[in-house]
Amino acid sequence: MSGGALDGIRIIDLTSVVIGPICTRTLADQGADVIKVEPPSGDLLRNLAKGGRNPGMPGKFLNFNRNKRSICLDLKKPAGADAVRRLVKTADIFVSNVRPSALARAGLDWDTLHALNPHLIYCGIVAFGEGGRYYNQPAYDPIVQSLSGIAGTFERAHGKPIFVPMVMSDHVTGLIAAQCIGFALYRREKTGVGETIEVPMLENMASFVMSEHMGGETFIPAAGPTGDNRLVSPDYRPQPTKDGYITISPNTDAQAFSFFDAIGRPELKTDPRFDSPASRTAHAHDYFEVRAKGLAQRTTDEWMELFAELDIPAARYNTIDDLFDDPHLNDVNFFREVDHPSEGRIRTTKTPNAFGGGGRDGELTAPLKGQHTSEVLTEIGYTKTEIEDMLSEGSALGEN
Amino acid sequence: MSGGALDGIRIIDLTSVVIGPICTRTLADQGADVIKVEPPSGDLLRNLAKGGRNPGMPGKFLNFNRNKRSICLDLKKPAGADAVRRLVKTADIFVSNVRPSALARAGLDWDTLHALNPHLIYCGIVAFGEGGRYYNQPAYDPIVQSLSGIAGTFERAHGKPIFVPMVMSDHVTGLIAAQCIGFALYRREKTGVGETIEVPMLENMASFVMSEHMGGETFIPAAGPTGDNRLVSPDYRPQPTKDGYITISPNTDAQAFSFFDAIGRPELKTDPRFDSPASRTAHAHDYFEVRAKGLAQRTTDEWMELFAELDIPAARYNTIDDLFDDPHLNDVNFFREVDHPSEGRIRTTKTPNAFGGGGRDGELTAPLKGQHTSEVLTEIGYTKTEIEDMLSEGSALGEN
Repeated sequence: MSGGALDGIRIIDLTSVVIGPICTRTLADQGADVIKVEPPSGDLLRNLAKGGRNPGMPGKFLNFNRNKRSICLDLKKPAGADAVRRLVKTADIFVSNVRPSALARAGLDWDTLHALNPHLIYCGIVAFGEGGRYYNQPAYDPIVQSLSGIAGTFERAHGKPIFVPMVMSDHVTGLIAAQCIGFALYRREKTGVGETIEVPMLENMASFVMSEHMGGETFIPAAGPTGDNRLVSPDYRPQPTKDGYITISPNTDAQAFSFFDAIGRPELKTDPRFDSPASRTAHAHDYFEVRAKGLAQRTTDEWMELFAELDIPAARYNTIDDLFDDPHLNDVNFFREVDHPSEGRIRTTKTPNAFGGGGRDGELTAPLKGQHTSEVLTEIGYTKTEIEDMLSEGSALGEN
Repeated sequence: MSGGALDGIRIIDLTSVVIGPICTRTLADQGADVIKVEPPSGDLLRNLAKGGRNPGMPGKFLNFNRNKRSICLDLKKPAGADAVRRLVKTADIFVSNVRPSALARAGLDWDTLHALNPHLIYCGIVAFGEGGRYYNQPAYDPIVQSLSGIAGTFERAHGKPIFVPMVMSDHVTGLIAAQCIGFALYRREKTGVGETIEVPMLENMASFVMSEHMGGETFIPAAGPTGDNRLVSPDYRPQPTKDGYITISPNTDAQAFSFFDAIGRPELKTDPRFDSPASRTAHAHDYFEVRAKGLAQRTTDEWMELFAELDIPAARYNTIDDLFDDPHLNDVNFFREVDHPSEGRIRTTKTPNAFGGGGRDGELTAPLKGQHTSEVLTEIGYTKTEIEDMLSEGSALGEN
């Protein structure tokens, strides 16, 4: 079914919205068989996002759930929770972003599942790690952006805290969860035993922010303030030109001096604020100001042509919509069109990373809720009568 | 030496600044033996970041290079490049963020290294993927934030494009490179052969942005505009209170209705814009405005107490500096103090993810440039005389 790096791996996926689904999509894109277990109400993302052709199938859901199958089970009914445990017996990985206390109530804690399947890798994605006072509290992406310092980096740069207009904490932590699962799979090949992994959002995002911005406070006593001064300048952004925006990175002396000539400020080459990489770093704020003023003099096209001649790294600015027309992305067929059985013609994005050992064979479009309930239950040994009983009592739900 | 998931894995690390170093730090934190190969001038990050006690050892360098050893080689000299090839023969992984054309010139391309070591996993982190017109062009984080739509999400939310004040494209792509290496290690355990992996920044970040924001343009013809409207509202940020900021996520009906009562707007419970999760998503912009107005009425402490009673998810806002005093982070010992042999007392941050199978034993602080040159060359069979010759001709450099 697949030639990806994770060919033959089966994943029981009790995740929802973005943080878990990006983790399991990443694994699915590498060829894993991901069985998405949805509650009767479905993954919340089916109804949270706008922009779809049919209810429950918005674009955001399709993007985060390709290459998965969906089984719909009511875990509050004994037969539903039992089906998850039977699935786990056949699986390599169990991944969930449900709170640990709720998993324990459903009989889906590590101790129970490990006893059923000693080879299992159990990945719990949580908001806050065990041992801290917020453990078991729910969280949402903005809560973690607020607590982890992500919003704080914007206050430093622009005077007020804002959020990245993406679910950055969810998305990055989900990618890290997939990374941790890869490491555990490697170790399991060597040791033969499974393990449990805890992936906490706040700790991962605080680590992200502080690796970049601990700065002089890395030292005790402090050798300077927190904050990477090159990144928290208010002018660290695409710079306005006469007719749009441009982004440049004249970092070496050769690039910087060519740039000073190009904007008609040759005297800056010997200005002690700008005459070396170290002095430009120390005066990053002033350097950004010089760039902002200089770049306003010409159009984006004029600058792009000139900077190509001068070998100064430069790029256009893409709006979200511009990505569809980006020449490099088009060269690599980043956007492809496929037919979705219920949603019609859709766009899908390329799996960005190329593996010489081969990628996933065959592609699945995102499932309808419960689309594979009967198929999956049959695979793990349920009889037709047992499945019919579950469907009629509502512990399992089919496609609808 | 280590009990981590990657215990026994040796990595030859030709990376610099952030994108590669966060990849290899992630692998080092899991117990891999990471040999950082630095040019005579050292990793650029040693001199790019401010805030240190001694030249070449700023906080940002220390944070991204813990648990590594440093060997300093001049790859422009035949004996320097040859030493890298001899290192590769002993290694599991080669990872680089050098441009492919430059690697080929140094005899460090996949074909050459794979012939020397068929078990090698070769990970090339690049700005732009093969097959596209920007392949082999250099890039820096702001260039990719500008091209990938990251800056574009801010224009949608706030009217003008800005960058995330972190090297987000570098940092996230580096984390993804570590993820890909984990998958390849797992596959190698099963197949016995190595492979090459290409991890391109632009494609990864475009995938990140478009998974969240392709929206109605996922469908052909479009079912609506791009952009997740909940995320691109100008009020999607920590909200000002009487004396600071607060972030809340009243998502369910129970939470939203309690919130409307708390701000003295009970009539909103039956307002058709706010009476269900779907209507609140459709009117996200208005809902954020209602929150902003309501939250200005009390202090952060007053709200935190009330929202705890009402079971409404809420969090304080942390500036970068506030992280040092965050009660949850302190509970989990997120910041630890260690002694660095040359830099004195320093702070280090916790490896955020907990592996039941055990973590790295023993911790290394970030190396001085060339600190382990002789040690590493000796390990791979260089004689004392050979090492002395390399040091005297400058193809290898020791600590200085």
